[in-house]
Amino acid sequence: MPTIAIIGAGAMGAAVGRRLVANGARVLTAAQGRSAATLARIRDAGMIPADPDALVEAALILSIVPPAEAIAVARGLAPALTAARVKPGFVDCNAIAPATMAQVAAILAETGCAVIDGAIIGAPPRPDGPGPAFHVAGDPDRHTDVLATLGLKLHRIDGPIGAASALKMVYAGINKGLTGLGTAMFLAAERSGAAEGLRAEMADSAPEVLARLTRAIPDMYSKAHRWVAEMHEIADFLGEDDPAAPLYRALGAVYARIAEDRAGDGTAIADLDAALGGRREA
Amino acid sequence: MPTIAIIGAGAMGAAVGRRLVANGARVLTAAQGRSAATLARIRDAGMIPADPDALVEAALILSIVPPAEAIAVARGLAPALTAARVKPGFVDCNAIAPATMAQVAAILAETGCAVIDGAIIGAPPRPDGPGPAFHVAGDPDRHTDVLATLGLKLHRIDGPIGAASALKMVYAGINKGLTGLGTAMFLAAERSGAAEGLRAEMADSAPEVLARLTRAIPDMYSKAHRWVAEMHEIADFLGEDDPAAPLYRALGAVYARIAEDRAGDGTAIADLDAALGGRREA
Repeated sequence: MPTIAIIGAGAMGAAVGRRLVANGARVLTAAQGRSAATLARIRDAGMIPADPDALVEAALILSIVPPAEAIAVARGLAPALTAARVKPGFVDCNAIAPATMAQVAAILAETGCAVIDGAIIGAPPRPDGPGPAFHVAGDPDRHTDVLATLGLKLHRIDGPIGAASALKMVYAGINKGLTGLGTAMFLAAERSGAAEGLRAEMADSAPEVLARLTRAIPDMYSKAHRWVAEMHEIADFLGEDDPAAPLYRALGAVYARIAEDRAGDGTAIADLDAALGGRREA
Repeated sequence: MPTIAIIGAGAMGAAVGRRLVANGARVLTAAQGRSAATLARIRDAGMIPADPDALVEAALILSIVPPAEAIAVARGLAPALTAARVKPGFVDCNAIAPATMAQVAAILAETGCAVIDGAIIGAPPRPDGPGPAFHVAGDPDRHTDVLATLGLKLHRIDGPIGAASALKMVYAGINKGLTGLGTAMFLAAERSGAAEGLRAEMADSAPEVLARLTRAIPDMYSKAHRWVAEMHEIADFLGEDDPAAPLYRALGAVYARIAEDRAGDGTAIADLDAALGGRREA
């Protein structure tokens, strides 16, 4: 029975833990100082609370935390990883830019552990579906193979540390970028009397894009405040020499306006719902 | 046999003329001072060269010219339209912003003609396909019904003058906006070692977007120089209070870089072709 440690028991971390447990793994997680809700989620997923010294006895450690915490996780575990006699592989699975991933790798370089760049794309695994894809780069010794045997969808990237983090950025750049473009254009269509025409034309010449936007735009309203920072992170990843950097800063502003509207009078969201052909947000 | 006049015998105008002739219309067009190539295209389409005084005897006049010429077409025809005893309908079919369409309508207001806002979306009609959609707004007397009986795909917009022009803007904003986003992200993926991973992830979770970009990005290279101005026109249409205006200016910069690359050493286009999985441009 392989032992895996997961740092972070949020919606994604707990669901991944549950999937690994269901496939026969022993799954440890850090639980000190966590809320009652998190402790309940840990128990519910079948994961075992453990100290840092015990966590590093796992074969593989997955860091699955909010992006802003990725560096702190690496710093916090470094002493225990340095002390460990048998070195686990450490996979940073977080939505961080390649430059931040390089910092994580630098922090852990002295520990003697294999540091692997990971990116999770998709929603948390559910009992009835295949779940998200785990993309990994910089794992020549295939420490992560065990994840595939434990029921996760694993994809190896033939690239250096940073390539998986970059993949997460560019995938979000297309996926959330398209939602932002669609938001801006359906709002403009609504105020110009062109929304019905836009739906009719897209139903004819781009039905799959219309279907995607009709689903993705209302799903975005409640996440818009988080996506502002994600768009800025993509801009930083591109660097100021890239002509698309201001594009992602502008997408951040589009999402900021939706977040403000949702906290305010909701007129923009009402216009979007009308432009898309009727109210959709649950 | 209905008589239709088409101002402009470019690729779109001539193909529309040919379609109308094939469906039994008499199609007049302005031909003074045109190149030998244009005159040949006019003859080939079965259209009849005519003076302005003869053009205004048509039941319907379609203006199908480059956007920068739309105002001059309206100004040039105004005297003959004012003099005409039976007033034709005038449809501006050009890719102009709603504000420019309002100028066209103002110029022709005194002529006594019905001025109709039109937008053509799609490639020129070919003998073997349905052809583009003609969206029309501001045509309460249904002057344009004849187009549907003559084999064109007609869609009425229940909106004011400007709504069809706005539709053209927002449709291009989504369609060409997505191509620009994809261009920026596949270039970033290629330089980060993430292109294969991006293709693999999209093949799994967004196959229709991947298929669209794989076709649309190489098709764009030769048009990138024209799309720069189109992106700026969308930004102007949105107005500087819209947080998406800088987004479209940035898309203009993305397309400018591709246009420069195509005129230059072609490294960005080679990177894009590689990122998309192999050379695609014909």
